[in-house]
Amino acid sequence: MDNGILGTTAVAQIGIIVNNIERSAKKFADFFGMEVPEITITDTYDKTLAQYKGEPTKARSKLAFLHMSNNIDIELIEPDDEPSTWREFLDAHGEGIHHIAFVIKDMQGKVNKLAEIGMPLVQKGEYTGGRYAYIDSIADLKVMIELLEND
Amino acid sequence: MDNGILGTTAVAQIGIIVNNIERSAKKFADFFGMEVPEITITDTYDKTLAQYKGEPTKARSKLAFLHMSNNIDIELIEPDDEPSTWREFLDAHGEGIHHIAFVIKDMQGKVNKLAEIGMPLVQKGEYTGGRYAYIDSIADLKVMIELLEND
Repeated sequence: MDNGILGTTAVAQIGIIVNNIERSAKKFADFFGMEVPEITITDTYDKTLAQYKGEPTKARSKLAFLHMSNNIDIELIEPDDEPSTWREFLDAHGEGIHHIAFVIKDMQGKVNKLAEIGMPLVQKGEYTGGRYAYIDSIADLKVMIELLEND
Repeated sequence: MDNGILGTTAVAQIGIIVNNIERSAKKFADFFGMEVPEITITDTYDKTLAQYKGEPTKARSKLAFLHMSNNIDIELIEPDDEPSTWREFLDAHGEGIHHIAFVIKDMQGKVNKLAEIGMPLVQKGEYTGGRYAYIDSIADLKVMIELLEND
């Protein structure tokens, strides 16, 4: 099975949940000698069609990306108060690493195969040019994974 | 300041603490379509000269490395019961991501500079061909960092 069920072993992102993205973006930028990254906010529900635990959710989050030198982004995420895997993580664990992400093809096929091996979908949504899915891989991999499919 | 205080922005390792490294190494290898990695154990104190919170420690851990395609290793770590940052993490948080690692030069200089900006040394030790240091960067970066210096 080439590169396993995901078809890739390239870690695309390390996703970190934070309480205050403006403060954290500046701390990270200073630490790594980078420009302070732009802070964006995920789209509204009419565009994301986001689902968390099988239910539609209006949850949004602020995002900032720090581009590391080996094709990895550190993604900072500040959730709002609506139901989401981001908010759940912050409430349960506090700030910290929430997921590692992989860019994949055939999102629905991958999500189905992962569910079959005991790694269910937690949250999914659309963004401009693609879609994401968070997978509960914690029992086997000790961390959540995110799938990213770009058109 | 080129690439910040570390002099690099390349993430070399994602370190994950596990309870049972034999089981986790197989789970990761199956998931990513790899050979099950060799499991090694860190050296004894006479070689590591390890210090945890300023005191010598006999702590050892079992290690396994999964080589991801973008020059990142996922490092699995099963601690023993002696005092260490690995054991402290497992007892406090359970299994999960413990650190991200960077390969640096001038270990002592880096450790000193990090302490000056409020990121103290937690644990350090020698391994064949180099040395490591774990830094408490959690307040600013939400995750511990590890420095690796290879001779």
